[in-house]
Amino acid sequence: MVQLFALEGIPPVVAGDDLAKLTVDALELAELQLQPADVLVFAQKVVSKAEGRRVDLATVTPGERALELARTVGKDPRLVELVLRESRRIVRTAKDVLIVEHRLGLIMANAGIDQSNVHEDGNFALLLPEDPDGSAGRLRTRLGELTSVQPGVIISDSFGRPWRVGTVGVAIGCAGVASIIDMRGKPDMFGRPLRVTVIGHGDEIAAAASLLMGQADEARPVVLVRGLASTSAKAKPASALLRPPETDLFR
Amino acid sequence: MVQLFALEGIPPVVAGDDLAKLTVDALELAELQLQPADVLVFAQKVVSKAEGRRVDLATVTPGERALELARTVGKDPRLVELVLRESRRIVRTAKDVLIVEHRLGLIMANAGIDQSNVHEDGNFALLLPEDPDGSAGRLRTRLGELTSVQPGVIISDSFGRPWRVGTVGVAIGCAGVASIIDMRGKPDMFGRPLRVTVIGHGDEIAAAASLLMGQADEARPVVLVRGLASTSAKAKPASALLRPPETDLFR
Repeated sequence: MVQLFALEGIPPVVAGDDLAKLTVDALELAELQLQPADVLVFAQKVVSKAEGRRVDLATVTPGERALELARTVGKDPRLVELVLRESRRIVRTAKDVLIVEHRLGLIMANAGIDQSNVHEDGNFALLLPEDPDGSAGRLRTRLGELTSVQPGVIISDSFGRPWRVGTVGVAIGCAGVASIIDMRGKPDMFGRPLRVTVIGHGDEIAAAASLLMGQADEARPVVLVRGLASTSAKAKPASALLRPPETDLFR
Repeated sequence: MVQLFALEGIPPVVAGDDLAKLTVDALELAELQLQPADVLVFAQKVVSKAEGRRVDLATVTPGERALELARTVGKDPRLVELVLRESRRIVRTAKDVLIVEHRLGLIMANAGIDQSNVHEDGNFALLLPEDPDGSAGRLRTRLGELTSVQPGVIISDSFGRPWRVGTVGVAIGCAGVASIIDMRGKPDMFGRPLRVTVIGHGDEIAAAASLLMGQADEARPVVLVRGLASTSAKAKPASALLRPPETDLFR
């Protein structure tokens, strides 16, 4: 059996907050004790806030390229300027659509920059963490200091997808839990090599947690996942979920 | 709290099997009683088998187009012939890669045709159900007859994705559980309209269930998901997860 618990009582997060401590407090409130194979999934938004990744749009001066692109996509030029700063290349544009390759390698709308639930006056934007795998590792270490158990940690975000309607949770940071599970070479039940060879394990966990997080508010930005196969310090990070360009037929 | 149970003791499924009855037997074995908001996720493979969608490759004669395409992609020409018969168009080809738009609208490798775990001599292929939303509806009705509770039903398959490594579970059939949740117009916690507006709910459930199903054998092709928000007879089918061509920038 796998169990998922949405932790209640995490307060609004601001820059400098000890997110691991807030999580441990919420676990105590729920009378849950961390176990070694537990995985904690954190919504990207609270990690970014704790790391001070909020930008006041009033401080952003859009350049020529941002001004032109903003006209094409119909977005705030200051937001577009931030998207360009965060990106390696533009993948697709259309009215209301700006899909880029984030400098981390993630292909996503608006470089993952969010304007919902950032600030009550709405003139702030929130960037992704600088290094989500690193953030996950630090959360894991800090949770270990506070509880003597190092859980797996995933940082999740909601991604749109080609061909399919609706967003799903995706792992942008992983520590201590396998981002991918490589089944290559394993036989099926009749001894044939498996057709499906690599499983997007971290993304499946992020999608599962997303079912409990909701979108309209931030009351449940942390989900505990219990009952998965064991976590491991040697597990691959979320960067292993990024398809290398040479195997990508949809660049 | 959301709980996921992988049902044990489902026997190998053959054409004509009453999959709902096998599931009810497995629920009894696990001492689980269906509840109204429960969702049962079925691996596509067992639904296809019960519906007799197995094809003996010895009965398939590849046409000219299949023979030529088979050389390009390096696959069995008889398999390629089946893929073409099941598809509307070819999306991408490369060595070992044949991505098509299935006649159902799903964009996937090999039209979802599977050769793993189909038969011990390996010369059989398994097609997707003719109408997975219909299959989900029939399973829901039949489960209702057997237990007096109509659970949500999802039929899942593993899909590869552009840009990301690894497969994730995806909903190809849904009945009585929302395939998508439309948040458009709902405000965020500060009253701003939400950036993320439609959630791929059915896909997130399929991904969660996939964590328990495994890939290397078929011992756990059915997963019970308990604790989600309520199911509904009016919920949209899995076809609602297919992006209309006019909004698809990655055709």
